[in-house]
Amino acid sequence: MLNPCDAALVATLAAALPAGTLSPPDPRHLEEPRGRWHGQAGILARPHSTAEVAAILRACTAARVGVVPWGGGTGLVGGQIMPDGPAPLLLSLERMVALRGAYPSENALVVEAGMILADVQAGAAKIERLFPLSLASEGSCRIGGNLAANAGGTAVLRYGNARDLCLGLEAVLPDGTVFNGLTRLRKDNAGYDLRHLLVGSEGTLGVITAASLRLFPVPAATVVALLAVPSPADALRLLGLAQDRLGGMISSFELIHRMGFDFLAETMPDIRAPFDPLPDWLVLVELGLPAGMEPEVTMANLYEAAVDAGLVTDGVIAASDAQAAQLWHLREMIPEANRRIGAVSSHDISLPLSMLPGFIAAAPGALRPLGDFRVNCFGHLGDGNLHWNVFPAQGKSRKDHDAVRDRVKMVVHDMVHALGGSVAAEHGVGRLKTGDLQRYGDPGKLAAMRAIKAALDPMGIMNPGAVFG
Amino acid sequence: MLNPCDAALVATLAAALPAGTLSPPDPRHLEEPRGRWHGQAGILARPHSTAEVAAILRACTAARVGVVPWGGGTGLVGGQIMPDGPAPLLLSLERMVALRGAYPSENALVVEAGMILADVQAGAAKIERLFPLSLASEGSCRIGGNLAANAGGTAVLRYGNARDLCLGLEAVLPDGTVFNGLTRLRKDNAGYDLRHLLVGSEGTLGVITAASLRLFPVPAATVVALLAVPSPADALRLLGLAQDRLGGMISSFELIHRMGFDFLAETMPDIRAPFDPLPDWLVLVELGLPAGMEPEVTMANLYEAAVDAGLVTDGVIAASDAQAAQLWHLREMIPEANRRIGAVSSHDISLPLSMLPGFIAAAPGALRPLGDFRVNCFGHLGDGNLHWNVFPAQGKSRKDHDAVRDRVKMVVHDMVHALGGSVAAEHGVGRLKTGDLQRYGDPGKLAAMRAIKAALDPMGIMNPGAVFG
Repeated sequence: MLNPCDAALVATLAAALPAGTLSPPDPRHLEEPRGRWHGQAGILARPHSTAEVAAILRACTAARVGVVPWGGGTGLVGGQIMPDGPAPLLLSLERMVALRGAYPSENALVVEAGMILADVQAGAAKIERLFPLSLASEGSCRIGGNLAANAGGTAVLRYGNARDLCLGLEAVLPDGTVFNGLTRLRKDNAGYDLRHLLVGSEGTLGVITAASLRLFPVPAATVVALLAVPSPADALRLLGLAQDRLGGMISSFELIHRMGFDFLAETMPDIRAPFDPLPDWLVLVELGLPAGMEPEVTMANLYEAAVDAGLVTDGVIAASDAQAAQLWHLREMIPEANRRIGAVSSHDISLPLSMLPGFIAAAPGALRPLGDFRVNCFGHLGDGNLHWNVFPAQGKSRKDHDAVRDRVKMVVHDMVHALGGSVAAEHGVGRLKTGDLQRYGDPGKLAAMRAIKAALDPMGIMNPGAVFG
Repeated sequence: MLNPCDAALVATLAAALPAGTLSPPDPRHLEEPRGRWHGQAGILARPHSTAEVAAILRACTAARVGVVPWGGGTGLVGGQIMPDGPAPLLLSLERMVALRGAYPSENALVVEAGMILADVQAGAAKIERLFPLSLASEGSCRIGGNLAANAGGTAVLRYGNARDLCLGLEAVLPDGTVFNGLTRLRKDNAGYDLRHLLVGSEGTLGVITAASLRLFPVPAATVVALLAVPSPADALRLLGLAQDRLGGMISSFELIHRMGFDFLAETMPDIRAPFDPLPDWLVLVELGLPAGMEPEVTMANLYEAAVDAGLVTDGVIAASDAQAAQLWHLREMIPEANRRIGAVSSHDISLPLSMLPGFIAAAPGALRPLGDFRVNCFGHLGDGNLHWNVFPAQGKSRKDHDAVRDRVKMVVHDMVHALGGSVAAEHGVGRLKTGDLQRYGDPGKLAAMRAIKAALDPMGIMNPGAVFG
């Protein structure tokens, strides 16, 4: 159906684009963080402008050649990697990094899609505002990719997912039409919300070239605590208690099982455990407070109330920014420890909050018939989003469980689905979970998605194989 | 293209649906609040269940008969009223009012689309939570209509528009397919976000039958103040000051021009003005605070800081809930005063915040060549959303300006568009602003909208004439 990106298309594009826009793909453009997918591409295009993106898509539509959009390359589900099929054009936005405008009085920032997330955060800080999207790869992921994947991260509880931080978009549709939707409005009901359709569509409907982003006041003070809780159910009760007292001032609420610290001890022995002995369950809480609320007092009051209610048994409240950074560092090193140990199967799942404790209690037992595993459960509890990852027993490796990997995944995903959850919570579908989408997706939704895809991308050139398989 | 809803279709439906589901339309179903549109319909269907909605849409698709969804009938842009064309089936959700589930620990409520907004608010209050959507017609509008129109209201600054309060949807697509998307998840990246496509599509892509709604903790205390400000620019500076100090605790920030009080004096002389003499510009501020922040002290501190900064010249801080309700009552009676005077032209516009003062200063002058008008400017300043309405001079009536109404509208809308604003901010497009959408809409967006409409509703049965004209 699609043609490979061949010399004829490259010649056509070379004639239409500035010198240096096209090049053979770098190895880094064909790899992904876990090294499990390897891509291929006929050519790498690194356009300088929206007009150049439009010219590229027009030519690819005319030639029926697939286009794989590439942001920072940090996606974990293979959305940016096309391992087989007719060689696509790889479209990297890395040269479109301009700050188009900063509007402190409007709490808005307009940036090009290739800007690295950390630079977006810095751009907001420069005008004394907060861009709250924050995730492990923020030093290399790019805002266009964050939006295409509707990234989540650690501040969703308070500020929402990437889509909630987007006021407007500029994007190029598959036929080269530019959608000029870069508004900075808070209310605009003039027609369908194409922004929300493109956000989270993982490059299958068009290419995001710029975004108008929503900023927030910087909290006057933040305070971080690491609290030992008797159980996940108590952690949720603690969240309820904190919300009753502090409403929308809870910036993060992360659950950590002690397995995370065991893995840190195993792979990074220099990192000191925060408690001895380690409790089974910990919660990392960050509050962002307005002027007039004393941060340590506020957290200490919450701590005392939680202890009184039997929801917390021990805790550390950071007394300085350095201590807060240390507590966060523990949380942030867990994915790296996971990577070093090597998961049999990783699951980025979300559940209705009230279903979480039951899932956490029951899921390990459901896997027992398939082998002897260690489970590292951590994640964004406030969002019902767990990274529930299955590891080999000590002394074994992931390869020892190759034969059961697919069954492990299915047991976990079937349970999540039965409880009303999602098996693609914040990392998206990419190419990894296309089968899951078919298995668990609502048939009405899938039919509508296919109709929309066919309507906006009739040739099917955009990110072939992603989302739809 | 479409057929009228005739006796044959009614007979088919009557055989498939419980007795009493179909009836001739009531007059109330063919009217709208301002009395400017009059509808027509072949039959009124009031289904009891999602399955009945699906049966109706299947039959209408087969017969190629238009369907006009009807919620509470409170829309101001004619979206629920089809004045001409082949008589449609009018589909009222008023019998689908069940509370399907209340989840306090998840901050979620699942309701059917016909539930009246005030009942949704009450359902949340019953589990000690807040459903923050609040607007003048909340006693009669229905949540399905609020979502279909992406309603705004007075709490958008803090909590977002209706779409931001929706976690999941159940809807029937034009061919009768049910989209089962009633999740209560905070993170779900499994495929395109159909929810956000349906929200704000004004019944042109399907019928919302139920929604999973996002609730919030009830603030421990609220405090309301009415503050005199020297100018709209100072009102925006005051907003910035308040946000720097109080972050996300500002629940409402409403601008009121003194013309609103003049209109109240003219039409409802019993209502007492809050200041004598009245300042030109006032701001109504509501704060919602957590436990531990003393409401009157917090507002008094804000007031003092604003006076020191020259942003506020006078003010009233409500000392009781009754006084707070009185201040809100003033704001809420302004639309009724407007209705009694009778606008030459009403404009529901939004602008980038930094463009608002310039627009407010320049727009009256732009209308001067067209007649002698009074302008009543009020609205949700925090959202950049103004109800900027043009009235005849005292002693004249709206009819005296019939000849220039369209030109008045176009002058205002052209200015708004040139400044990067929207001419359909919170009331939607309906049938009133289809010309505006064509005139001001981005061609790329309009093309994509048409493609999506054709893909999901190839027969064009859903709300014919709305949005697209």
